[in-house]
Amino acid sequence: MSEFDVVAGEEDLIRGYLAPLAAGCPGAFGLAEDCAVLTPQAGEDLVFTTDAIAEAVHFLADDAPDDIAWKALAVNVSDLVAKGAKPVGYLMSLAFPEAPTRAWMQAFAGGLAEAQQRFGLVLMGGDTDRRPAAPLSITIMAVGRVPSGRMLRRGGARPADRLYVTGSLGDAALGLQIRRQTRAALAWPLTGVERDFLARRYLRPEPRTGLCDILLGHAEAAMDISDGLAKDLDRLCRASVVSAEVHVERLPLSLPARTVLAACPEWVEAPLSGGDDYEILAVVARERTAAFEAAAQDAGIAVTQIGACGGGAGVTLRRSDGQTLQLTNTGYEHF
Amino acid sequence: MSEFDVVAGEEDLIRGYLAPLAAGCPGAFGLAEDCAVLTPQAGEDLVFTTDAIAEAVHFLADDAPDDIAWKALAVNVSDLVAKGAKPVGYLMSLAFPEAPTRAWMQAFAGGLAEAQQRFGLVLMGGDTDRRPAAPLSITIMAVGRVPSGRMLRRGGARPADRLYVTGSLGDAALGLQIRRQTRAALAWPLTGVERDFLARRYLRPEPRTGLCDILLGHAEAAMDISDGLAKDLDRLCRASVVSAEVHVERLPLSLPARTVLAACPEWVEAPLSGGDDYEILAVVARERTAAFEAAAQDAGIAVTQIGACGGGAGVTLRRSDGQTLQLTNTGYEHF
Repeated sequence: MSEFDVVAGEEDLIRGYLAPLAAGCPGAFGLAEDCAVLTPQAGEDLVFTTDAIAEAVHFLADDAPDDIAWKALAVNVSDLVAKGAKPVGYLMSLAFPEAPTRAWMQAFAGGLAEAQQRFGLVLMGGDTDRRPAAPLSITIMAVGRVPSGRMLRRGGARPADRLYVTGSLGDAALGLQIRRQTRAALAWPLTGVERDFLARRYLRPEPRTGLCDILLGHAEAAMDISDGLAKDLDRLCRASVVSAEVHVERLPLSLPARTVLAACPEWVEAPLSGGDDYEILAVVARERTAAFEAAAQDAGIAVTQIGACGGGAGVTLRRSDGQTLQLTNTGYEHF
Repeated sequence: MSEFDVVAGEEDLIRGYLAPLAAGCPGAFGLAEDCAVLTPQAGEDLVFTTDAIAEAVHFLADDAPDDIAWKALAVNVSDLVAKGAKPVGYLMSLAFPEAPTRAWMQAFAGGLAEAQQRFGLVLMGGDTDRRPAAPLSITIMAVGRVPSGRMLRRGGARPADRLYVTGSLGDAALGLQIRRQTRAALAWPLTGVERDFLARRYLRPEPRTGLCDILLGHAEAAMDISDGLAKDLDRLCRASVVSAEVHVERLPLSLPARTVLAACPEWVEAPLSGGDDYEILAVVARERTAAFEAAAQDAGIAVTQIGACGGGAGVTLRRSDGQTLQLTNTGYEHF
């Protein structure tokens, strides 16, 4: 049996590669049942989310299987974190165009194991199918927990609240260009290490799990940024019935992103409309900003105040010269 | 805007067709959030399952959209019912090769609404993607509830326990042949009404939701029959470390199925290895069989004792002449 052999049927796939990922979940019964069971803790609500990723749409056919696995889980955990919910477990529905090789499946399961450990959740159950000629797709439903009645929403922002984002924006959009080896990306004045950094930001989003309690303690509203800040902030404003003004020069950029934007101004919108950031957009009342910033600093999570909410509606992108910026690309459209 | 127009983007899809399906679930927030929240009841566990259906694998490209929707939900609810879990809600991940027409989406949402009402659950959230050249697929994750610690499993059967199935077996496998208008099916001596009955058994499986409490009260183990009785019973026997003997002539057959099997003996295995039955296989201790049968009768659900468990391992299919039946097709293989 070589690593180039393909996985021999559903039993082999489940027992050999997936059941070990469920070892930490007694209610998964080693994936021997069609269902998983969970006994909720008193005083807690459960939070559910689902996100699917498919080859050629959300990842590239030659992405490493461990990176694909990581991303599939990370994009779901990111949604939970934005609600203040701690990850608990997940179900996974896999659709393969053909049986994967053992080497592929080993690496894929390895990426899931890494992500599980980092994010603190376990596989509870799933479903596997072969769909000839279909792209590989991974659909995950993740379950998290929050104190009862405390789930954060998009709709809690009020005028004068401050807007924060975690980490840095636009890296993943640039990283995708590097992964694709586009003509533009090949010309960027970056070192190999910087290219790898940006590519990795695309391949391995890092949900801010350490921010859950801080969001619950200090934020009025939150969401994760997956389709570009401008588009996601607009969604938050609509849900909250507020406007927002963002100071474009305050957007947190990594050094490699700063280098690209300085050399190639046509990429200036990447931090605003590039997808796949998976950073958190948090809305904090003015009187809580100091406490929020201190708590984030203690947790080692970079947060940057990028603007504020106001009355009315709409998102204004304010440049340092006082002019407003109009985007040519308003963000990722799924459908 | 005509019914032949396509749905115009994700917002239109969610607001126009999906959000109304979440109206009964306060924790779905009208699908305006990325997540749904559920406050569990004290003394109850939550049960999770996921099953995906894809065009050309689980349904036919020209199946009616309301039938596709019904099946997507029914196959998940069937899993819950077999665990004794009452359906609560579901998340749905839709992957479209291209934007559907309004007429298609209206009918699809209508099928979901019908199924929700019949099965007693609501849409809690989801995800929508366009995947060019991929088959239409619907991945559902369903949530149910059981009294704490009471979820039924496959592994509870003991020697001498009796085996029961609900409804009738093999109809869906024959119905698929009718839907496909295969040469064999066209020759079957059936009326139009009988053909429609079998096709409908394939298109619109009926999870036995009324059996939840009866299973919890009387069964030692259960599972739903989705890949053919022989294969699924073998799984139950392995999980329970028992053998099973099935009296083939006792298998419950609908009148149309009986007609086909009498006229065309080559279909004799349909009730044993045909997939898509979505009936329940229940294991009942000998001393509880009378109470189980009475409770099922009161609930208007047909149950038939088809055999018993024993020591050792393996499934024996016993014919009325005392000989054993060896299957040429052992059941549906997903992968």
